[in-house]
Amino acid sequence: SNSFHLAVMPGEGIGVEVMEAAAVVLDAVEKRFDLSFRQEHVPGGAHHFKETGAILPNGGMERIGKADAILFGAMGWPDIRYPDGTEIAPQLDIRMHFGLYAGVRPIRAIPGTPPILTDERWKDIDLVIVRESTEGMFASRGKGEIIDDQEARDTQVITRKITEELTDFCCRLARRRRETRGTPGRVTIVDKANVFRSFAFMRKVFYEAAAKHPDIEARHHYIDAMALDLVRRPWDFDVLPTENLFGDILSDLGAGLIGGMGFAPSADIGGGHGMFQPSHGTAPDIAGKGIANPTAMILSAAMMLDWLGERHGSNAARDAARAIELGVDHAFGKLNLRSYDIGGRHGTRDIGSTIANLI
Amino acid sequence: SNSFHLAVMPGEGIGVEVMEAAAVVLDAVEKRFDLSFRQEHVPGGAHHFKETGAILPNGGMERIGKADAILFGAMGWPDIRYPDGTEIAPQLDIRMHFGLYAGVRPIRAIPGTPPILTDERWKDIDLVIVRESTEGMFASRGKGEIIDDQEARDTQVITRKITEELTDFCCRLARRRRETRGTPGRVTIVDKANVFRSFAFMRKVFYEAAAKHPDIEARHHYIDAMALDLVRRPWDFDVLPTENLFGDILSDLGAGLIGGMGFAPSADIGGGHGMFQPSHGTAPDIAGKGIANPTAMILSAAMMLDWLGERHGSNAARDAARAIELGVDHAFGKLNLRSYDIGGRHGTRDIGSTIANLI
Ligand SMILES: CC(C)[C@H](C(=O)O)[C@@H](O)C(=O)O
Ligand SMILES: CC(C)[C@H](C(=O)O)[C@@H](O)C(=O)O
Repeated sequence: SNSFHLAVMPGEGIGVEVMEAAAVVLDAVEKRFDLSFRQEHVPGGAHHFKETGAILPNGGMERIGKADAILFGAMGWPDIRYPDGTEIAPQLDIRMHFGLYAGVRPIRAIPGTPPILTDERWKDIDLVIVRESTEGMFASRGKGEIIDDQEARDTQVITRKITEELTDFCCRLARRRRETRGTPGRVTIVDKANVFRSFAFMRKVFYEAAAKHPDIEARHHYIDAMALDLVRRPWDFDVLPTENLFGDILSDLGAGLIGGMGFAPSADIGGGHGMFQPSHGTAPDIAGKGIANPTAMILSAAMMLDWLGERHGSNAARDAARAIELGVDHAFGKLNLRSYDIGGRHGTRDIGSTIANLI
Repeated sequence: SNSFHLAVMPGEGIGVEVMEAAAVVLDAVEKRFDLSFRQEHVPGGAHHFKETGAILPNGGMERIGKADAILFGAMGWPDIRYPDGTEIAPQLDIRMHFGLYAGVRPIRAIPGTPPILTDERWKDIDLVIVRESTEGMFASRGKGEIIDDQEARDTQVITRKITEELTDFCCRLARRRRETRGTPGRVTIVDKANVFRSFAFMRKVFYEAAAKHPDIEARHHYIDAMALDLVRRPWDFDVLPTENLFGDILSDLGAGLIGGMGFAPSADIGGGHGMFQPSHGTAPDIAGKGIANPTAMILSAAMMLDWLGERHGSNAARDAARAIELGVDHAFGKLNLRSYDIGGRHGTRDIGSTIANLI
């Protein structure tokens, strides 16, 4: 089928702005390719919580669960918190609710954007961090103990089941990347197995599960060494599965390497569901100014189309995904599009419409 | 007093080589300044474990505890492990045994070394990560649970006591840096308080303790945002206290920004004890070749002298520390010293003797 039901959740802050830019791009691919979208808008976020006492509308979780894919802007606001001081983050609740264990966070240097590293291989950066997104340290969200105001604890949980699924997912991703982009087909787990039993367990299960994919090269790397090597030789890596909190950290580091969060898309996949969102948050400091870089949001929409294409056998969706990616590369690489975050003067709308026009 | 008893623990791999280079530098400062060292060599490490069944000699912990300072090379070897698969890491045992809660890891761009970031402010990088080194996630070392080969857990522990001590230490460090280097006197805790109660607790205690130092600016930053900002604007940061595992990750990231682990010294301080060691490990791949960069080890010796100088009111030790730092800067910045890790041809000994000659 080439007709898709999308749950569209702009959220708040710059989430709303970048979603508008992505909508213009989606309109363009709908016109150009044999595709049709039914877009169902679903509110939610910290302001929604403040007004209604709930992070999503009644029945919201069920509604978005019925869509073919969820397109998510950004939610959360520093001043609006739960009583325990932690932040409203509906994206975490959605990941947990639907078991979206694979947080796919590609890090690719966009041609034409200013290099961050002096090494000229910078332009070859093309890796994917796959952040496990339902357990690890985040299993402790809302469950940490505080004892007598003297001591606090949070517990990380790693399961065989999810580690196997994650490994399997990453091996398939590495294979597909090898076919479509010529990458080496290499999966490197990032852990701290030298010190912690839960990570030694994770690594062991990873190698067992990876053995079922003999065409894929399975490796391991320590989290600290990876933080170093993502600065020294990021061009050497392909697919990097890791624990939830490690993935949170490494994917922001990776975003830093390619010009910031405005260029870092993501997908959260699991159990037949997929949510697609930029890696950035609501950015209260620049919200409402029209200067947010919507590239991460637009590339997230491309990841959504690619995923829908694979899942539903839709060549139109796959082609549309590729067209968006090429549009982004052309806009920055050839047309000298320059967003504010890299020192330019092109606003959110400009960037959306420039990329839409290229499709 | 200007006479110091040093426990010298070269360890294994390149630990032995870089310690030899540091010894040449220590000899030079002993001659030049009014200082005398009694050096007591203490073995230990993974090979020691393999041969004797213990990571340190009998009574070794007591012996090093009696010294004025511990100078440590590197210990650990990938193929020699505990039965649970984790690595031999005596440095962790020493940190825990003596309560060396403050893991001080300065990140400073050495003049003359090749810039890593394209931004010209790269040369202004001068920050210190203070890795809490006795609790946090590492409280779980050797204690993680594995249930039926299906699920594994490790628990992080944050205490009020250690967080207060850490904060106090960091505020004093920021003050001293302001006086001696003109840095802004700013301490920024790095946590994940938006999601985890243990980190929300850590941040709360941090602000309470920092309030006792009204001349120091106290701030907070999320770990993921910090991983991004250490790539985007590391020159903006001063003193960065953080949880143990976060500090492990960020300090390696920081080392990557300044040319690698060969330039990253460290100190582990607590309870009147101090251990000084390069941030790197034993590097089995290059061990025995004479090409390891001893700069991190030599700068660690300088940190030791500075600490001894403060603690024992020894101007000679403080001056010696400063002379070593200036020697390193002069060797790389003016004499074009280039270690192998930054593409040069100066070996471990060369670098040690060049810096020693400058003193
Ligand atoms: C907003 C925050 C809770 C969230 C996370 O930690 O997962 C964000 O950093 C992310 O990476 O999606
Ligand atoms: C060797 C390893 C156990 C150690 C650590 O994780 O503390 C090292 O990475 C360090 O940074 O000192």
